[in-house]
Amino acid sequence: MIEVTAKVRVRYGETDQMGYVYYGNYPQYFEVGRVELFRAIGMSYKEIENFGVMLPVADLSIKYVNPARYDDELSIITFVRKLPEGVRIFFEYEIRNQEGKLLTTGNTTLYFMDKKTGRILRCPESILNLMKPFFE
Amino acid sequence: MIEVTAKVRVRYGETDQMGYVYYGNYPQYFEVGRVELFRAIGMSYKEIENFGVMLPVADLSIKYVNPARYDDELSIITFVRKLPEGVRIFFEYEIRNQEGKLLTTGNTTLYFMDKKTGRILRCPESILNLMKPFFE
Amino acid sequence: MIEVTAKVRVRYGETDQMGYVYYGNYPQYFEVGRVELFRAIGMSYKEIENFGVMLPVADLSIKYVNPARYDDELSIITFVRKLPEGVRIFFEYEIRNQEGKLLTTGNTTLYFMDKKTGRILRCPESILNLMKPFFE
Amino acid sequence: MIEVTAKVRVRYGETDQMGYVYYGNYPQYFEVGRVELFRAIGMSYKEIENFGVMLPVADLSIKYVNPARYDDELSIITFVRKLPEGVRIFFEYEIRNQEGKLLTTGNTTLYFMDKKTGRILRCPESILNLMKPFFE
Repeated sequence: MIEVTAKVRVRYGETDQMGYVYYGNYPQYFEVGRVELFRAIGMSYKEIENFGVMLPVADLSIKYVNPARYDDELSIITFVRKLPEGVRIFFEYEIRNQEGKLLTTGNTTLYFMDKKTGRILRCPESILNLMKPFFE
Repeated sequence: MIEVTAKVRVRYGETDQMGYVYYGNYPQYFEVGRVELFRAIGMSYKEIENFGVMLPVADLSIKYVNPARYDDELSIITFVRKLPEGVRIFFEYEIRNQEGKLLTTGNTTLYFMDKKTGRILRCPESILNLMKPFFE
Repeated sequence: MIEVTAKVRVRYGETDQMGYVYYGNYPQYFEVGRVELFRAIGMSYKEIENFGVMLPVADLSIKYVNPARYDDELSIITFVRKLPEGVRIFFEYEIRNQEGKLLTTGNTTLYFMDKKTGRILRCPESILNLMKPFFE
Repeated sequence: MIEVTAKVRVRYGETDQMGYVYYGNYPQYFEVGRVELFRAIGMSYKEIENFGVMLPVADLSIKYVNPARYDDELSIITFVRKLPEGVRIFFEYEIRNQEGKLLTTGNTTLYFMDKKTGRILRCPESILNLMKPFFE
């Protein structure tokens, strides 16, 4: 299993007039988590795109357990629980505040795509090889 | 069943460097759909909040079928397929582009909350009464 | 002079916990105004980009006169007061609410750029020709 | 003079289809800078609001010198060059990328407001006292 924690501080503009983080801002937090997971295993998402591979999102699911508030320091914990098989990669997320309280859980399925042709691809060997040590 | 269509034009800032609408912007489109559904049945979401009732989101699920692009004129079709029972209300969404192509489907569960006390509420009678004619 | 009015309804996610529209969301409203001005004179910004010309923003200035609120129906009035000379085009904006109250004024300078080479360009003749009738 | 540097990593959703950070996302970066400046002098913006004081923005000005790109690690350098006089406080900003290249400059005027009454206030003594040592 791969598990990586990223930190973000809630910005004022991310709240809404309810006084909490707007529900539509969490997908961006999840993306920060994914990006830091790739960086942690040794290949930034930017490098993946420069390689000619994109990772569009196929589906997203979120449960809002407790609200995040302005200036909270959030821990975004991102999990890859099994090696990508075929064209897809599945991420799970937990967001906790500075007191460790669980705020949100979620998951996304992404797929590998050739940037030039738009064709769907199997997970590149270079990425698989960086992930394998975490599953041994 | 209640079914209401809202229109939004994709803004430049809603795209990302993939050239499509960023996956995290769809929850905002869904919210536009919900808001127009409430307006269409006769009580704007703003009036509901002025009444002292808030509708936080409990969960969200999205399937990204086809990408939306800059300047697309999107139809956000919002459905309430059954009357709220108890404290929850369930919305389903379809987003289609100007050619009628299906881009996204999704759903959200919201719950009724007292704005002052933060207590969870049953769906207010005034809202139920506006919805009932659609289910007869 | 060219003057075009676009309408946007304030979205919930555009407010912040002060209860007003977040100050950082107005540049997006200005962009909606610019885009509708180009459409009104006969060439959408999308077509301009498809032609191989981009219009990056060089500078932005905003005065926040009165706050916009959730669900307000805003009129974004966009002005081009003189024909572009050389590589730049200057836009001015006023945002008013449904009661005609002035909320925001602002302006932006944009410049014409070749999409492929990144070279700065003079305003293309095709755009100038669409604008000239408004200044006669 | 007070000068504080905050770091942010550019998120994917902050880019647009031009491949750069969308021009409307810089005000949010400036806000991150301001917030870290308050924290650095000893009173977080959250504490200021809990005190019953808000700081709405009166005006904003930005010059876009060079584009920020996805995954750039930005330094947001925020300056208060003189003590607030009366009801206003003036912030200046520079944004630089990981190579020290200047991307953006800007400034904002904010004013002090009583959260309950909406009345404009002089800068509270408690904030002035935290700032004074930087100007001696």
